[in-house]
Amino acid sequence: MEILDLKMPAILSAGSVVGKKESEGPIGACFDEAVNGDDRFGLDTFEKAEGEMVRRAMNHALRKSGKTEGKLGAIFAGDLNNQCIGTAYGLSGFDTPYFGLYGACSTCVEGLILAAMGVSGGFFDAAACAASSHNCTAERQFRTPIEYGGQRSPTAQWTVTGAGAFVVGTGRGCAYLTQALPGRVVDAGITDLTNMGAAMAPAAYDTLSRYLGESGHAPSDFDMILTGDLGQEGHSILVELAAKDGIDLTRNCSDCGLLIYDRDHQDVHAGGSGCGCSAVVLAGYLLSLFEKNIVQDILLLGTGALMSPLAVFQGRSIPGIAHLIRITKETAL
Amino acid sequence: MEILDLKMPAILSAGSVVGKKESEGPIGACFDEAVNGDDRFGLDTFEKAEGEMVRRAMNHALRKSGKTEGKLGAIFAGDLNNQCIGTAYGLSGFDTPYFGLYGACSTCVEGLILAAMGVSGGFFDAAACAASSHNCTAERQFRTPIEYGGQRSPTAQWTVTGAGAFVVGTGRGCAYLTQALPGRVVDAGITDLTNMGAAMAPAAYDTLSRYLGESGHAPSDFDMILTGDLGQEGHSILVELAAKDGIDLTRNCSDCGLLIYDRDHQDVHAGGSGCGCSAVVLAGYLLSLFEKNIVQDILLLGTGALMSPLAVFQGRSIPGIAHLIRITKETAL
Repeated sequence: MEILDLKMPAILSAGSVVGKKESEGPIGACFDEAVNGDDRFGLDTFEKAEGEMVRRAMNHALRKSGKTEGKLGAIFAGDLNNQCIGTAYGLSGFDTPYFGLYGACSTCVEGLILAAMGVSGGFFDAAACAASSHNCTAERQFRTPIEYGGQRSPTAQWTVTGAGAFVVGTGRGCAYLTQALPGRVVDAGITDLTNMGAAMAPAAYDTLSRYLGESGHAPSDFDMILTGDLGQEGHSILVELAAKDGIDLTRNCSDCGLLIYDRDHQDVHAGGSGCGCSAVVLAGYLLSLFEKNIVQDILLLGTGALMSPLAVFQGRSIPGIAHLIRITKETAL
Repeated sequence: MEILDLKMPAILSAGSVVGKKESEGPIGACFDEAVNGDDRFGLDTFEKAEGEMVRRAMNHALRKSGKTEGKLGAIFAGDLNNQCIGTAYGLSGFDTPYFGLYGACSTCVEGLILAAMGVSGGFFDAAACAASSHNCTAERQFRTPIEYGGQRSPTAQWTVTGAGAFVVGTGRGCAYLTQALPGRVVDAGITDLTNMGAAMAPAAYDTLSRYLGESGHAPSDFDMILTGDLGQEGHSILVELAAKDGIDLTRNCSDCGLLIYDRDHQDVHAGGSGCGCSAVVLAGYLLSLFEKNIVQDILLLGTGALMSPLAVFQGRSIPGIAHLIRITKETAL
């Protein structure tokens, strides 16, 4: 049995902070805080701005949980920056043990799984998870500085400026972490730096199909199946891969990167991406659906392209990974 | 209580692969495998060589544990490369769930803690941990390519070329993971890219002093207290910080970065460093001391400088972190 029984610790609270574009999107009203002005949050570098979003998101989550940072056994967190500096500096003021993660855009779900394991295993009463990305830090690091104004490919995605944080613990919450299936590294041979969806979709399908096979569930057993940031290109590939195996994902499967922007009017090409994408969509939007009883049982797949410009320049393809977590309303099981 | 009771899962096996310089050092005979020729392991880039070391170290550990990769519930692993590509590519052939970590040089202990939590929490029968570094990948990424032949500062350390891997599980092993205290981000204001020891020592002392205070133990209760890669500079600072609080670390405290090289004859300046440093010293040397009953109870502090060249260029100081794990012979408790 590879599916992990997480024993249902609660998501006690969540915090979300986003940039201007995200606040203007279809779910913009769901977030705790949006930047006022440009995406520097009043600071002199984009990296500091990303750290500031992490700090604020964590503080929103702590405030809503009624816990102080000293009550957290650990924070599991990471981002897309080299050496995860958004997180390291953003959390350096928190007096809490820190487990640094690198799961690319799968970080939010990776962290939720580990926080849940820590709580359910009896190691912590409460633990936190945080994940962030910033469009300007990511574009400069992985592609070119945005000031170049380079032409973007139709398959390119728009890295979300946002940070999400969660407090997981014993007790009652708006939703519960029920099961998990951590992902394997899947390399489908993609070498296009501007098509992360294609690099991640095979990993998403690998994890999802293993979960469905092992659990005996059909996609229709869930209110939603959401991937983290496949975007339109990756989402289409995932649906096609599933269809080849007779699995219908056309009804209730979507992607956080498709929910966060209005692709017709926001010029984001294939949709949103980045560690912050699934983090803020879960923190701001999906958990509100649980609170309103609109959904009771969902699968969230954190999708990550373990993409390194250096490795791509050295001729290597881009490995993907996808971690699955099942989130339920307590009454649903 | 912040100290985690890990409930003593066993280190079932370990594997270590090192470069030429490490094989010529004082504990060079302890490692499973050393490179034959230059440190490229027959491959065309140093990054591929690092991945190859990870793959081989994991295979040594698996072989000695008698387990196949399919029996591992997860691998917790990371390295110093941007996007942890040594690990991502090195492990991409393993059919095992992968949790990517970024803890800089603290990664080995971070991974051991998480693997132990996964096993003791009942989530896995066995899990693995791996950490690696390569002198040539790290020097180019964090400072300058070694081909430049830049003058090295006396406080600079030599990044270890090596990978260590561990299988942790239920059952009997040569040593057991007993307690852990994960570290907090500690920023002592160091901005010198060539003095990682000074950036990490305050974090090491923060974690060690919290552990001693909370557990009621004195340093003399342990056969050894070992830090991961403080080197001579950081080690001296740690001993001084402790002395100010009346804690004597002069008797049984050392550093993996001081054990792995002969500083008088190997021109490594302040000593060894890198994720691979503590990983191979634990895998190759320390576990052999347990097997020979030379030690029965040690503290290992994985020390990490969360150093980003970009952040330093932007004028920020270098945060450190240190995760502590207590390793015992079963009979010792």
